[in-house]
Amino acid sequence: MRLGSIEAGGTKFIVAVADENYRILARRRIPTTTPAETLAACISFFQENPVNALGIGSFGPAEIKRDSPHFGTILNTPKPNWAQVDVVGPLKQALQVPAAFTTDVNASAYGEYMLGAGKKVNSLIYFTVGTGIGGGAIQDGHFIGGRSHTEMGHAFVKPYSGDDFKGVCPYHGNQCFEGMASGPAIEARTGQRGEDLERSADVFKLISYYTAQLVLAAYLNFTPEKIVLGGSVISQTELPQIRKVVRELNNGYVDLPDLDQLLVLTSIPDNGAATMGNFALARRLLEG
Amino acid sequence: MRLGSIEAGGTKFIVAVADENYRILARRRIPTTTPAETLAACISFFQENPVNALGIGSFGPAEIKRDSPHFGTILNTPKPNWAQVDVVGPLKQALQVPAAFTTDVNASAYGEYMLGAGKKVNSLIYFTVGTGIGGGAIQDGHFIGGRSHTEMGHAFVKPYSGDDFKGVCPYHGNQCFEGMASGPAIEARTGQRGEDLERSADVFKLISYYTAQLVLAAYLNFTPEKIVLGGSVISQTELPQIRKVVRELNNGYVDLPDLDQLLVLTSIPDNGAATMGNFALARRLLEG
Repeated sequence: MRLGSIEAGGTKFIVAVADENYRILARRRIPTTTPAETLAACISFFQENPVNALGIGSFGPAEIKRDSPHFGTILNTPKPNWAQVDVVGPLKQALQVPAAFTTDVNASAYGEYMLGAGKKVNSLIYFTVGTGIGGGAIQDGHFIGGRSHTEMGHAFVKPYSGDDFKGVCPYHGNQCFEGMASGPAIEARTGQRGEDLERSADVFKLISYYTAQLVLAAYLNFTPEKIVLGGSVISQTELPQIRKVVRELNNGYVDLPDLDQLLVLTSIPDNGAATMGNFALARRLLEG
Repeated sequence: MRLGSIEAGGTKFIVAVADENYRILARRRIPTTTPAETLAACISFFQENPVNALGIGSFGPAEIKRDSPHFGTILNTPKPNWAQVDVVGPLKQALQVPAAFTTDVNASAYGEYMLGAGKKVNSLIYFTVGTGIGGGAIQDGHFIGGRSHTEMGHAFVKPYSGDDFKGVCPYHGNQCFEGMASGPAIEARTGQRGEDLERSADVFKLISYYTAQLVLAAYLNFTPEKIVLGGSVISQTELPQIRKVVRELNNGYVDLPDLDQLLVLTSIPDNGAATMGNFALARRLLEG
């Protein structure tokens, strides 16, 4: 069995092929240019490296509901040329294989659920805290999301006492998690990129506060067995502080599980959770 | 087929029996005193009015996970005598019928999903905004909640500009929805009970703001097809204002559906959503 993955991002598409043990056999980085050019390059790759099924994790907003006539389409993105573009259709037509399609963050959640930190649990939330903030939630093998995919990074936050940063979310300013705690928020707050800052910098105390609020909200809304943090912003250094703030914010209300077990960093190296999730979604199509 | 319902509340248990068309055949109000006395009165009622299965919607926190050894137990409640009390065990033993057990708000959600505003949708959230604020979420017939039931009313909120009310939540003060927008919050804010206030009172503007934030958070976290509001605080009068604030808070970010369709009041009269949900959960036990 050969499994295919497309991690469809706004700047690059990562395509990859794995065997049934999820060992990667081939991989390519394709720049995101026009839909016609980028999808043609994906098709070429999978013609050279044939697969039995394809899993696609895409930037959004995207139509991920299988029963929609627009299933597999990127929706109203601000990215030039890509709004209302059917991604799945041309790939399926050219390659004649079944294709799963979800968001990049859902794919990462599924990767952790099947092959990473969530291998032994039935419910998991994956957050990416990076250029954007997003979450994917899984319960008993199903993605949570009724009409569409979730947008957890844009839920409103209680500001940290005295934090008068005006926020970077073009829609919500300082009102949502993404506005306050994403990579661009760090850069706007400090004038430096997160990866160039010492982990002891004050800004990470703020980021830990907002991430703790994101984690507690997720716990109160979903009571997952695992919450996995990915993305470039949070490192092992912040985890103890985040867990401490989660406890403080909860203030004894809900009976929290052991936070060392509940809240972990992504366990799949090299930013590979989405690719592994895509493989596993492709496999699920074949095995039902 | 005879279906039984127990709405297990902190001040009263409502027990009821319905036929297979959900017509109520008998009903009784039992004051919540000690567990032994209250459960004995429930058992007497169902001995006089036999049923084939029982649905129980309980106050919480409660163990609702069927695979837990403590399934059917009220957990760490502050209510005297009721912490760690097994509710399902004595009922099943005395009545010898299968019993479903969930929270009162999950039961209401299920009632709306099967028999009320959610009859034509696959995903729904029910909020009660009353003495407390709580939510129940259903997707494709399953309750959302991995380890336990959710606690959506205690997620943190962004304060309304200039709202310096100190909040009534004993755990979270002015930080969570329940602290800011529940019935007791209205009373603490105004010195009057909500039902004694004119609907034009300023306080309902604040309550509409917080309810809109609750609704938008639910949409971003779950993208349900319906959000149903129950409880004593919100009336038809506030709905247009809540929908307006939801739109303002979203600010064009997520592609919201028609809010007149998405956001509605409970459609089951006389506070009956939980009872109807209990009947439907009992029926599901019999019919699989």
